[in-house]
Amino acid sequence: MRSTIGKNFSLTVFGESHGPAVGFVLDGLPAGIRLDLDKIRLELDKRKPQGKLSTQRHEADEFRFLSGYYNEYTTGTPLTFVIENKAQQSRDYDKLKALPRPSHADFTAYAKYGGFQDHRGGGHFSGRITTGLVAAGAIFEQILASHGITIGTHILRCRQISDRAFDQSALAADIAALDSPAFPVLEPSAESAMRALIEEAQAEGDSVGAVMETAVHGMPAGIGEPMFHSIESELSALLFGIPALKGVQFGAGFGFADMPGSEANDAITGIEGGRLVTRTNHNAGINGGISNGMPIVFSTVIKPTPSIYKEQDTVDLTTGQPAKLRIEGRHDPAIFHRARCVIDAVTAIALCDLMMGRYGYLWARNGGDDA
Amino acid sequence: MRSTIGKNFSLTVFGESHGPAVGFVLDGLPAGIRLDLDKIRLELDKRKPQGKLSTQRHEADEFRFLSGYYNEYTTGTPLTFVIENKAQQSRDYDKLKALPRPSHADFTAYAKYGGFQDHRGGGHFSGRITTGLVAAGAIFEQILASHGITIGTHILRCRQISDRAFDQSALAADIAALDSPAFPVLEPSAESAMRALIEEAQAEGDSVGAVMETAVHGMPAGIGEPMFHSIESELSALLFGIPALKGVQFGAGFGFADMPGSEANDAITGIEGGRLVTRTNHNAGINGGISNGMPIVFSTVIKPTPSIYKEQDTVDLTTGQPAKLRIEGRHDPAIFHRARCVIDAVTAIALCDLMMGRYGYLWARNGGDDA
Amino acid sequence: MRSTIGKNFSLTVFGESHGPAVGFVLDGLPAGIRLDLDKIRLELDKRKPQGKLSTQRHEADEFRFLSGYYNEYTTGTPLTFVIENKAQQSRDYDKLKALPRPSHADFTAYAKYGGFQDHRGGGHFSGRITTGLVAAGAIFEQILASHGITIGTHILRCRQISDRAFDQSALAADIAALDSPAFPVLEPSAESAMRALIEEAQAEGDSVGAVMETAVHGMPAGIGEPMFHSIESELSALLFGIPALKGVQFGAGFGFADMPGSEANDAITGIEGGRLVTRTNHNAGINGGISNGMPIVFSTVIKPTPSIYKEQDTVDLTTGQPAKLRIEGRHDPAIFHRARCVIDAVTAIALCDLMMGRYGYLWARNGGDDA
Amino acid sequence: MRSTIGKNFSLTVFGESHGPAVGFVLDGLPAGIRLDLDKIRLELDKRKPQGKLSTQRHEADEFRFLSGYYNEYTTGTPLTFVIENKAQQSRDYDKLKALPRPSHADFTAYAKYGGFQDHRGGGHFSGRITTGLVAAGAIFEQILASHGITIGTHILRCRQISDRAFDQSALAADIAALDSPAFPVLEPSAESAMRALIEEAQAEGDSVGAVMETAVHGMPAGIGEPMFHSIESELSALLFGIPALKGVQFGAGFGFADMPGSEANDAITGIEGGRLVTRTNHNAGINGGISNGMPIVFSTVIKPTPSIYKEQDTVDLTTGQPAKLRIEGRHDPAIFHRARCVIDAVTAIALCDLMMGRYGYLWARNGGDDA
Repeated sequence: MRSTIGKNFSLTVFGESHGPAVGFVLDGLPAGIRLDLDKIRLELDKRKPQGKLSTQRHEADEFRFLSGYYNEYTTGTPLTFVIENKAQQSRDYDKLKALPRPSHADFTAYAKYGGFQDHRGGGHFSGRITTGLVAAGAIFEQILASHGITIGTHILRCRQISDRAFDQSALAADIAALDSPAFPVLEPSAESAMRALIEEAQAEGDSVGAVMETAVHGMPAGIGEPMFHSIESELSALLFGIPALKGVQFGAGFGFADMPGSEANDAITGIEGGRLVTRTNHNAGINGGISNGMPIVFSTVIKPTPSIYKEQDTVDLTTGQPAKLRIEGRHDPAIFHRARCVIDAVTAIALCDLMMGRYGYLWARNGGDDA
Repeated sequence: MRSTIGKNFSLTVFGESHGPAVGFVLDGLPAGIRLDLDKIRLELDKRKPQGKLSTQRHEADEFRFLSGYYNEYTTGTPLTFVIENKAQQSRDYDKLKALPRPSHADFTAYAKYGGFQDHRGGGHFSGRITTGLVAAGAIFEQILASHGITIGTHILRCRQISDRAFDQSALAADIAALDSPAFPVLEPSAESAMRALIEEAQAEGDSVGAVMETAVHGMPAGIGEPMFHSIESELSALLFGIPALKGVQFGAGFGFADMPGSEANDAITGIEGGRLVTRTNHNAGINGGISNGMPIVFSTVIKPTPSIYKEQDTVDLTTGQPAKLRIEGRHDPAIFHRARCVIDAVTAIALCDLMMGRYGYLWARNGGDDA
Repeated sequence: MRSTIGKNFSLTVFGESHGPAVGFVLDGLPAGIRLDLDKIRLELDKRKPQGKLSTQRHEADEFRFLSGYYNEYTTGTPLTFVIENKAQQSRDYDKLKALPRPSHADFTAYAKYGGFQDHRGGGHFSGRITTGLVAAGAIFEQILASHGITIGTHILRCRQISDRAFDQSALAADIAALDSPAFPVLEPSAESAMRALIEEAQAEGDSVGAVMETAVHGMPAGIGEPMFHSIESELSALLFGIPALKGVQFGAGFGFADMPGSEANDAITGIEGGRLVTRTNHNAGINGGISNGMPIVFSTVIKPTPSIYKEQDTVDLTTGQPAKLRIEGRHDPAIFHRARCVIDAVTAIALCDLMMGRYGYLWARNGGDDA
Repeated sequence: MRSTIGKNFSLTVFGESHGPAVGFVLDGLPAGIRLDLDKIRLELDKRKPQGKLSTQRHEADEFRFLSGYYNEYTTGTPLTFVIENKAQQSRDYDKLKALPRPSHADFTAYAKYGGFQDHRGGGHFSGRITTGLVAAGAIFEQILASHGITIGTHILRCRQISDRAFDQSALAADIAALDSPAFPVLEPSAESAMRALIEEAQAEGDSVGAVMETAVHGMPAGIGEPMFHSIESELSALLFGIPALKGVQFGAGFGFADMPGSEANDAITGIEGGRLVTRTNHNAGINGGISNGMPIVFSTVIKPTPSIYKEQDTVDLTTGQPAKLRIEGRHDPAIFHRARCVIDAVTAIALCDLMMGRYGYLWARNGGDDA
């Protein structure tokens, strides 16, 4: 299956950028979860285009549930969430049908779907599709929060400009500080410098990418599976589903190649509440694929958006001949600051799935009616 | 499920390090595939301990099929592959039961399985379990090879010592050069320098890790799915199932944070045989999660082995008090040179699964009897 | 998962009887299938209430696609289909919340969902939910028809009134005769007698059930799997998903207990076009779970609708005390004549899933763009 | 997947009749379940050939675990169970390769696997494969028994000879009486009459089938899902995986076509311990796919074994011409008395899967370490 995920639930994210609607269907959630619609709205706001740094397509993102929701609670049956698209401008995309944008999905969608894809606005490959994903993630974030688990993502580095890393000794506060639609950095000074980089790229018809850092606070020990359903496996499978995300590393990550084992190993200093306490956390709270109780910390890289206004080399698919491409329409010079809530969303989805798989973990404690 | 993977087949890898056997069951392979047992033996040889750089546990790794195999061909029913364990020394592990090794799965297995795990030799978390995985991968590598697709992995960097990167203009030759049990580097000079690093770590009772580079030659365009079953998603989910692997990046990877879009985009120069030809390949042959026909290239990091002989801080699980740990037994000072065939194996498994999902892709061309 | 099915696709049927909408999301269909909307309308018409024999709730059943459909063709991405509910009357259901209807899902929904279920109109347990299922089935019936495979279901027996069985030597014609919204019998005389039975039950505030017979014409040999994914397994799993269906038998079915093997065995008289030809077809075209090329023929039983107007014994869930129940609202005295298109729908879904699993079977011949 | 089942676990049953071994791999069982090997042996004994009524192939059925089992307990990792085959006589099967037995899987295996199937002894289609299934079922029966849930199956009818039906008011005793390798009937007098029927068929080179009745005692309410993962769906999918089983009906089953709703509905007389109490149990303890707490009762039909010694009409697959077939070798004149433990096994597997899906149901109460 293509846009469907979940082992203990089935989540299908649907929609095309310029189709009638985007949304999701989620089958497998227990009955009796009170949905916090404001949390969903907050996450959607984090994803929205921001002023002049972003596309000028503005969608109200008003949502409704078509099923599975009654009197403020989940009913235990498939939950269908829909946002109608309203601000499409499809004419901008007609000439792209023959001239694939370099490093965009135009050619690969053509190779896969043979011309039947909805090419308008990037179709199912558009960042617009992450709207439903963010909304679904907001529900799983609520569930985790009710167990004391919180997630946050900030921009760690954009070219030469770095934000400070998460302070793992004060992680709850750092994560809480990111829970608003503001530009997601921990050091206020990083915002203006990064905004300047984005604006500069925009002025040149170019784009920029960034390294993002994500942390999960409050993880219990014993979650995850050995081998293929490790925390790293489940998280990375969903993270790489985010358009433009091209790398994932946990803890010290690629830096492990520079360390001897005696440095890479996190010395154990105690056990508290069933969780391991270690002197360092190079292993990101995960050993053998399973959580040890320390924070889960990972970084990802979002590549520069491929839809740039500079002239580029491509081929004409109708003739096979080289061609020059100059695109029009509304495109973001950077999407990483908007993507951070998508990272949070898939992190919540992956962790909830693993915890639901540990029989009764989430629900037995919850008094949920399906427990 | 824990040790079971596959969407178009079901592959369960089973065994404990000191249990009776390791192996796999593979359900979903078509009938009529002639299995090349020498290819399976070659891949198992690549994984075997190598001289003084490795553990002194030596297993003959003689295998047999219990089902699904008849007269040299697959029968279309579940294929069961078994290697009996013979060279276990379990006494070395008894004291580890109370004293978890830092950054090993000892504590997390205890937290998850509550003491019922088979702790001997690391149990199901041991690298020994990858034996079955490598054998399964060898079968999928045969299938891919019959379609002209080959895979190779080498050590790109171990601390300050680097091998040269793959030459994408002569990729088939680079991959072919790695298809032997020799130390997996492209530059012969890198071998002695890296061996020296490993021996030095060994002499100090320490260990080392490395960055690995993998390339896939011969990929057709149009394989993979948008979003969560992208090539990156499927590959990374299996790659992170390899013990000690802590990072995955495709193409330019984390380097994308340093590039403008105009550099990150791979200019399109032509189409040949349905495959895109691009000037650079920063995007690793994958756009929107789907192959464009250029080589798939990614790097991974294998952390230093956590079982080192230096004294380490830990806690005694029976008392909760701090304790000092000095381990004995047979442990590798480095496993990355052995892990490369595990990377090849999971790459083959993930790509075959995606191609089987594209209806008829592999088999319709194959004359397979199940096609 | 609860309302999600499919191995080679993921089909989630959603909605509550009195919620905003019913529909489905189908992920996994190839791109480039031209959808025949008239076929969808025809199947929905077969399911609609019929005159005075049925509930007086009348829905226009106007549908739209929210995603995955563009320019008359599937795009290869999730296909979302929605029908808004318009004719709900929820007040009739309030008193049922405390007084479960005998042999209805009222009590079991309460036991499972703990009061959070949407009880109005039976919620997710209502026959209304089969609307989306019938629409999804219509798409799979189109796909099968393009391969020469057709499906039909008629009422074989309602109490003492029987229709004639399918004539397997003229099966295509019998199936074609059923492809209209008319009362589904093969002998015109059976219609008036059965209608009289239903009206009689209705007059008494009671209800009736029936045995249905289904046939599949044009099946190739070699479809299905040994053991748990046999044709019988896959069909029955979906058939028993139809509310009120309580039995499934293939070919001679329970009559096999009266036959010696020499009679039960279908003598083989030839092979034509890769299909077996047998003198009898007691085994319903299926041996060892796999099709042999003869028609697939099975019968099912639909129990009388449990919502009857006669006074019934029940308990009051709020007090645990015995109570008398007299229901109001709009209820069918029989649903089997409407259910036949649901049987056809799930039959098509199950068979397509099995054929998609046989690599390339459906698509390689189809020129589908995902092939 | 073909021989793999389970939503909350993955169970692959492997082996060929004349291959090296039969068995299963089960991934997903929690750690810390103490396995009762005597229960496994008892169930295997129920399946064994019985005196002169059965095949003269006698296997010791000595089993061992290759993984996932340590110090008498499950470890939480894949559990691999193997029985080596020892008493094969393959020569009897050579002439069958060209002459398919009527109503056996010979032709359909050929159509599906194109000649690569292991035809010896029926290969993967042989009843021998159910050995692994019965062993796996014995483990799930242990788990259910620890929650007070027991399962039994007896022969209800063989031609004109009937056993009495289960006494639902004394169900635990009826089920307990069947828990031995003796001939499975409730009325001792039925045994001699049925044995005479089987011996008569055997003397004529013919075979017989039977209707089986199964009951589950101790089911809690609220297990099962609406629609496609109903108790009926999950049970029937596995039941139809049993070779020769051609019909399944729950409660009144096909008899519902003869009842008005007022008779078919089970009047509710009370609630005890969260379970419904009804005057009758025509609906087999299941409403809307979900258990109501009354016993689950269903009947199935096992067709006569197709391998009879009388001459039969078939075709020669090498020439396409009609041919006469007279088979040799060791074949059962009836298998229903041996099949009853296979029915119990798949019933236990299906019910455990549904209960594991209800988060924490089985394990939270169990003190399991994975709970």
